[in-house]
Amino acid sequence: MFSPLIDELMHALKVLPGVGPKSAQRMALQLLEHNREGASRLADSLQRAVAGVARCGRCRTLTEQPLCGVCASERRDNTLLCVVETPADVLAIEQAGSYQGKYFVLLGHLSPIDGVGPEDIGIDQLLALLQTEPVSEIILATNPTVEGEATAFYISERAKKAGINVTRIAHGVPLGGELEYIDGGTLAHAFSSRRSL
Amino acid sequence: MFSPLIDELMHALKVLPGVGPKSAQRMALQLLEHNREGASRLADSLQRAVAGVARCGRCRTLTEQPLCGVCASERRDNTLLCVVETPADVLAIEQAGSYQGKYFVLLGHLSPIDGVGPEDIGIDQLLALLQTEPVSEIILATNPTVEGEATAFYISERAKKAGINVTRIAHGVPLGGELEYIDGGTLAHAFSSRRSL
Repeated sequence: MFSPLIDELMHALKVLPGVGPKSAQRMALQLLEHNREGASRLADSLQRAVAGVARCGRCRTLTEQPLCGVCASERRDNTLLCVVETPADVLAIEQAGSYQGKYFVLLGHLSPIDGVGPEDIGIDQLLALLQTEPVSEIILATNPTVEGEATAFYISERAKKAGINVTRIAHGVPLGGELEYIDGGTLAHAFSSRRSL
Repeated sequence: MFSPLIDELMHALKVLPGVGPKSAQRMALQLLEHNREGASRLADSLQRAVAGVARCGRCRTLTEQPLCGVCASERRDNTLLCVVETPADVLAIEQAGSYQGKYFVLLGHLSPIDGVGPEDIGIDQLLALLQTEPVSEIILATNPTVEGEATAFYISERAKKAGINVTRIAHGVPLGGELEYIDGGTLAHAFSSRRSL
């Protein structure tokens, strides 16, 4: 409809999650009309990130160093290991700011129906870590979905065999949440996991 | 929080309209984890569009050619000239598919409060066009905002002096719109602009 370069840019912008044809059109025109400098900077950042960012050799999160900042840090507690599904989960926990241990990123969850087995989510690498590091507790922070729970259960079984303490983060009513808007599954879980005061 | 390259990418993604810190984070991680090829293609498209796309010499819309496709076309009606505010408006009208004339893009609207006068929106270039081309009707399709209406009024006065027929696109209840959800201003306009059947 427009010139080929603009059409191509609109098409390329649709790789971004949550961006459909209308948003892509708005983004392309906005950048070309009002922010070419920002567009160049974005192109440059994309290229350097694609070329430079790989996986942390220890925890598998995204980083441009051989080891990510958390794994390389001397100040983090080596005895705690939090297992999450994605690098975004690491970021969310880091932004909460209360956890001082280390991480292991599965980059997915067990899902036999999609052909994702233990070897695909780095369970071998996780078990090897438990041998080489003084981990005393594994904190399972996989998502509270069917697959996430199955993955947590699988890891807990393997880790218990290795004699390591395994915990699961709490699930229930979120802070600031109002009971009347909480779904039934969460409420039922919150009741069954109640603790004495 | 993450490595510098990823932080920089998240920051760079925020130049996109409608993208805040959370969306930028999601986009950056999604691209790096699942679609590096798409990210490279996007970087490439951005660079080529920024380098190659400029303004059409006649109608001022965005194009990589000296003249845009509409202006260069032999099949478009030279006697009709539709005046719009942005290249996105051209695209919207082209997608509707019923208009066969040519365009002139103001790239803005008159806004004395922001220091935008007639020379900033290419009125001189528009009047020059009227001299050199066989335009018999100007269709004003600026937005129905205070500034858009003022711009339309200003252009109509100048064009009438040049002896050219000036029309304004119709404003009223959109097709498929339900009366009960239409705002009062639009409804009042629809009543005052009613036409006999």
